[in-house]
Amino acid sequence: MKTLLCRHKILLTIILLLGSVFFSGQVVAAEVSEDTDACIGCHSVVTPGIVSDWQKSLHYKVSPTEGLLKDSIERRISAESVSEGLAETVVGCAECHMMNSGKHPDSFEHNGFTIHTVVSPADCATCHPTEVTEFADNLMAEAYASLMNNPTYAHMIDSTNGNHEFDEGAMNFHGSDPLTEADSCLSCHGTDVKIIGVETRETDMGEMNFPQLSNWPNSGVGRLNPDGSVGACSSCHMRHQFSIEVARKPYTCAQCHKGPDVPAYKVYSVSMHGNIQKSVDKNWDYKAVPWTVGKDFNAPTCAVCHASEIVDENGEVLVKRSHRFNDRLPWRIFGLPYAHPHPIEADTSNIVNKGGLHFPTELTGEPVSKFLISQEEMDKRQVNMEAVCSGCHSYQWIKGHFARLDKSIETTNHMTLQATKILSQAWAEGLAEGIPQGENPVNEAIELKWVEQWLFFGNSTRFATAMGGADYGVFADGRWSQTKNLQEMYDYLKFLRATKPPLKN
Amino acid sequence: MKTLLCRHKILLTIILLLGSVFFSGQVVAAEVSEDTDACIGCHSVVTPGIVSDWQKSLHYKVSPTEGLLKDSIERRISAESVSEGLAETVVGCAECHMMNSGKHPDSFEHNGFTIHTVVSPADCATCHPTEVTEFADNLMAEAYASLMNNPTYAHMIDSTNGNHEFDEGAMNFHGSDPLTEADSCLSCHGTDVKIIGVETRETDMGEMNFPQLSNWPNSGVGRLNPDGSVGACSSCHMRHQFSIEVARKPYTCAQCHKGPDVPAYKVYSVSMHGNIQKSVDKNWDYKAVPWTVGKDFNAPTCAVCHASEIVDENGEVLVKRSHRFNDRLPWRIFGLPYAHPHPIEADTSNIVNKGGLHFPTELTGEPVSKFLISQEEMDKRQVNMEAVCSGCHSYQWIKGHFARLDKSIETTNHMTLQATKILSQAWAEGLAEGIPQGENPVNEAIELKWVEQWLFFGNSTRFATAMGGADYGVFADGRWSQTKNLQEMYDYLKFLRATKPPLKN
Amino acid sequence: MKTLLCRHKILLTIILLLGSVFFSGQVVAAEVSEDTDACIGCHSVVTPGIVSDWQKSLHYKVSPTEGLLKDSIERRISAESVSEGLAETVVGCAECHMMNSGKHPDSFEHNGFTIHTVVSPADCATCHPTEVTEFADNLMAEAYASLMNNPTYAHMIDSTNGNHEFDEGAMNFHGSDPLTEADSCLSCHGTDVKIIGVETRETDMGEMNFPQLSNWPNSGVGRLNPDGSVGACSSCHMRHQFSIEVARKPYTCAQCHKGPDVPAYKVYSVSMHGNIQKSVDKNWDYKAVPWTVGKDFNAPTCAVCHASEIVDENGEVLVKRSHRFNDRLPWRIFGLPYAHPHPIEADTSNIVNKGGLHFPTELTGEPVSKFLISQEEMDKRQVNMEAVCSGCHSYQWIKGHFARLDKSIETTNHMTLQATKILSQAWAEGLAEGIPQGENPVNEAIELKWVEQWLFFGNSTRFATAMGGADYGVFADGRWSQTKNLQEMYDYLKFLRATKPPLKN
Repeated sequence: MKTLLCRHKILLTIILLLGSVFFSGQVVAAEVSEDTDACIGCHSVVTPGIVSDWQKSLHYKVSPTEGLLKDSIERRISAESVSEGLAETVVGCAECHMMNSGKHPDSFEHNGFTIHTVVSPADCATCHPTEVTEFADNLMAEAYASLMNNPTYAHMIDSTNGNHEFDEGAMNFHGSDPLTEADSCLSCHGTDVKIIGVETRETDMGEMNFPQLSNWPNSGVGRLNPDGSVGACSSCHMRHQFSIEVARKPYTCAQCHKGPDVPAYKVYSVSMHGNIQKSVDKNWDYKAVPWTVGKDFNAPTCAVCHASEIVDENGEVLVKRSHRFNDRLPWRIFGLPYAHPHPIEADTSNIVNKGGLHFPTELTGEPVSKFLISQEEMDKRQVNMEAVCSGCHSYQWIKGHFARLDKSIETTNHMTLQATKILSQAWAEGLAEGIPQGENPVNEAIELKWVEQWLFFGNSTRFATAMGGADYGVFADGRWSQTKNLQEMYDYLKFLRATKPPLKN
Repeated sequence: MKTLLCRHKILLTIILLLGSVFFSGQVVAAEVSEDTDACIGCHSVVTPGIVSDWQKSLHYKVSPTEGLLKDSIERRISAESVSEGLAETVVGCAECHMMNSGKHPDSFEHNGFTIHTVVSPADCATCHPTEVTEFADNLMAEAYASLMNNPTYAHMIDSTNGNHEFDEGAMNFHGSDPLTEADSCLSCHGTDVKIIGVETRETDMGEMNFPQLSNWPNSGVGRLNPDGSVGACSSCHMRHQFSIEVARKPYTCAQCHKGPDVPAYKVYSVSMHGNIQKSVDKNWDYKAVPWTVGKDFNAPTCAVCHASEIVDENGEVLVKRSHRFNDRLPWRIFGLPYAHPHPIEADTSNIVNKGGLHFPTELTGEPVSKFLISQEEMDKRQVNMEAVCSGCHSYQWIKGHFARLDKSIETTNHMTLQATKILSQAWAEGLAEGIPQGENPVNEAIELKWVEQWLFFGNSTRFATAMGGADYGVFADGRWSQTKNLQEMYDYLKFLRATKPPLKN
Repeated sequence: MKTLLCRHKILLTIILLLGSVFFSGQVVAAEVSEDTDACIGCHSVVTPGIVSDWQKSLHYKVSPTEGLLKDSIERRISAESVSEGLAETVVGCAECHMMNSGKHPDSFEHNGFTIHTVVSPADCATCHPTEVTEFADNLMAEAYASLMNNPTYAHMIDSTNGNHEFDEGAMNFHGSDPLTEADSCLSCHGTDVKIIGVETRETDMGEMNFPQLSNWPNSGVGRLNPDGSVGACSSCHMRHQFSIEVARKPYTCAQCHKGPDVPAYKVYSVSMHGNIQKSVDKNWDYKAVPWTVGKDFNAPTCAVCHASEIVDENGEVLVKRSHRFNDRLPWRIFGLPYAHPHPIEADTSNIVNKGGLHFPTELTGEPVSKFLISQEEMDKRQVNMEAVCSGCHSYQWIKGHFARLDKSIETTNHMTLQATKILSQAWAEGLAEGIPQGENPVNEAIELKWVEQWLFFGNSTRFATAMGGADYGVFADGRWSQTKNLQEMYDYLKFLRATKPPLKN
């Protein structure tokens, strides 16, 4: 990569000669720390985009001390106080990338500073402890463990990412590899980032050492960080502007919640809420804290319903902020064969049903209750969610809406069960090899059709009901697709039989 | 829902003690009626979002009398005059929700006022009679009747929404239920909203009675309202801002016109028109009445081509506003097996073909002409549509464009016919049970594939042609999918035969 | 089209009487040429939208002479100078539509002027020669030839667009027609526009003659123009505002790059880059030349990575502008069965593999190296692309990212190969008729499934890797779909066998 090496050579030589003073008068604000100033000295040349981006952030504009002076309802910092060393300067490169260095095995010497690449939730907790604590109870925070430590999902990962072979008339299944997994499932779920060595490289600044990170880059929401913490705040609060506006816009959630397996954004985009947002959100204030319904926005985004603190123009709080998104969710409506009450623990890999599968329901749909929240907890969460709706909607509207969600959960679970019965019949007749044979239950064509029955069509239908997504509950991977897939599985059973010698009638 | 009950108790008690005067100085404009003022007194606390939303509307800012003073080409009110009681105050809660109460079986006593929940087109017609009258001639206005009263569609609804069962090796078909239908097809088509009882509820204001509405909530375009009227203006003119900007943006139409069955918005979004709109519409004036091509917008949205009045900078009218969208549509290119001239009547459930199906064409594609508009009427509508195009395009451009649409209608109809011939063969051989057997013709897998041939792929191709949607006429559910689906149906016929004992060769 | 004829009659009569002077004081700027002024005289009435659109363009606001005065890094004109006739007035109707008339067989006499309809890259090269020259080396520029002159693609066009027939139990394949092709593949690839006659029409101005253009309208990127040139600048620089803002926004590329065959925009829209763009690009300056990373934009659009000149706030150029998009692309990751190094020549129809197919790889994936760029050239292009990334990302981030792309190319090619082996088996057993039989290899159902393996699922996966598109590499036409399609092809082979009489077992 010769060009990258040479690009800034002259400029950087000047910097080294003059010191960072050269830049401090130019791009850096008064309260920037000396250490950060030094970072910027080179990085405004080496990675200019992220320096400019950061300069548009609140981190750059407001010091923690100034932040702490705000009324609690307007405050962005949840810590009661911050240490003296951090209080007076703005939050810059050094403040995050040099923090907690003793706890960071990825810390390394870099031009006279000890820095780490992977800023983790444990670092962010210095100023934002409530958010980090709440987030840790999210299903999302354990997105890595819940996927990778569940044997059935391991089968599904192999099946999806594997390099299968058609050889001598038979299909042979092969496993996946780390590069593909990091690029596939784990791009959203998060990778396992560890130090795996040190690399010496020629740079514009001469020879330098850098720790080598495994499975990097990654911003997955359940990332395992080198410092032992879990999660990545930057999944939703993008580096280095960390804009609340971006986090509150639905495009952030769409990064991982748009595919056929979890079409939340698609559904939102055709809902009346999504229409209003796209049509007139230029008039909204996405940065206001607190966030006032009607004044700052006229229709919810994902954040409004699932995370943000919402107040009315009288200053009354409709619903409290929570980064534990489960707080407003009684049901888990996607990701598993059957919708079911939310799991108690964020790490779901320890859930086991009677059949030994790590599923929160039996294969026939009955919930495995001891791992799931109680009816009382469900009711409490339902109240939280309805408090958001009540910003604009009447009691009868809200109750009518959620009655449909209950029905949608019931009917989609029913339609998954029928697909399960067909699959079980295929296994019983030896037309496919799955659980009874101790084989991967999700790699043959009829098995993959079964997966789509719930992962695509059940999910899509339930999301459409929950968020008013019209066609996503009908023709766009909705009820129509559920019926069609079921009928095709039924015929498939017959086609598979017809290929079995000797043909039995 | 304890929280909702308690949330505002203290505040509402204060309101009751002080009367609505408490609020009138604060959030309410001078010309708001006393009745509306009283509504706001509580509802700025109970449903603050919709109060704020309304305060951003023209309804809040301009009284009917002021509206009537505008030049006719700028006027939003189509009534010649309004009654004295309505003329001087702005249009607020009371003006709509207390209007025509004698005609509203859903009217009820509410804190000393007689109000109704479901404001209907008959209410809106007080100020907007032309729009309501025109809209009634739209296919959309009869979206409920045309769907629910057509026996073939009834089969399709059952098939789509039904709770089918795989039992003892056979597939049993079951019908649907009202909650599912309201959440599925009828979320766009509209539900049948009736008074089905009265509910007494504990509220923040003490015990209150509310009429119970069936199939509520709903904003479907063909909704049957308790007052006997049909339709919902709020499908496109969202409560309570009723913003013309929202109605003119394509995201409104996308609510119901984005799925694979009617991918109008998808097609628009990849058209050159849609590109320009997304790229630079921040510079457009979506609120201008009249709407000037080139000055207020540089590319059409859905509304430009199908509804709005368009003028040029000389003030000349290119095309008149019409809420009877059919006025510019010679062909009906979606929803039925074959594209055909538009039906004469908005309620199409009375159309019957020679085979007894309630289809506007025979099963083999020939139009059932007596229910359809004449060539003369088609020509007239074509002229209306071309008048819009002529704002930017030359004669040869326009003629070349529509020659392709004629061909696209011809070829997609041809490809549907081939699928119909395969399906008929399946029925003839008893490989599926449909019309010849007097059974549901759209519930078995091969039948559902037939439906997708026209409902998805024929539609998508025609929309792509009509609106310049490139890949939606090729690989994105377009001609490619038509061919692939046809070939698969052809093989399916053979696969079904192979499962029939004894195997005949 | 009576209305179009009559609409402006009175107004145009006035114009003819008063001359164009009538308008020049009103809508036309000082420096507009007399000829353009005359055009506007009528066209502000006949096609008012494009006149207004042009008036918002830089062409209208800045004369070439003024443009040439800018510093080279800010300059939009790449010509060193322009001829005297063009230099002093703004670039209006006459300047483009009357240019090079001797070379334009589509030139015709029009109200006393000699004009041509189809302005071509050869015309644009008068002021923008560098861009036109670079563009000519793009694969895109030869989009027509590379598609239409490749016999295998000819099969695919027939298969996609053809009017197939199911007759007497057999499927008969029929070819396509020019109207359908222009509306399908060629809407993006470009049509062959020729003069095919002259038409005399009654207009508002009396009887007039117009040359008839074949396959018109069209703005496809590889269009064959009447003047013998190739391409259409207006594909991305839309008439008549020619806004750099539009070209730099991703919606322009989405016109042709959004379908399942080339889901670049879809992938972008769920990437972190796309999220940031949609969330905060209202704060960006899409018109700045040069374009400064961090200051003018905070995340790339398509143009940033593939075309634009990018500078940093110090004025240093990260990467040079190029309309030869290949300059930054070592690999060609879509359109062909296997990803492979970029072809050397833009017209790929002359490439032939050992098997006689006009493919840049063998049917089993090995690259046909003599037609493809060398490793050295690939490395050079990789350096160019990484220079863009380095605006915000570190060395390790970039290297980690591209290591995944290498792996993704390897695994998707592997999965295509397995599908090819199944298809070859089907051909060998006579279960389908393709290459061994000298028949169309892409028209039967199992063949079409093979095409989707690479055209949809391989492409989608690679795009997702290249641009961080999460689910488009997994469930949204990604690796999941690759596996499922492969398993279905495997079963399909067995189903086809079961239909063959006599049934052998």
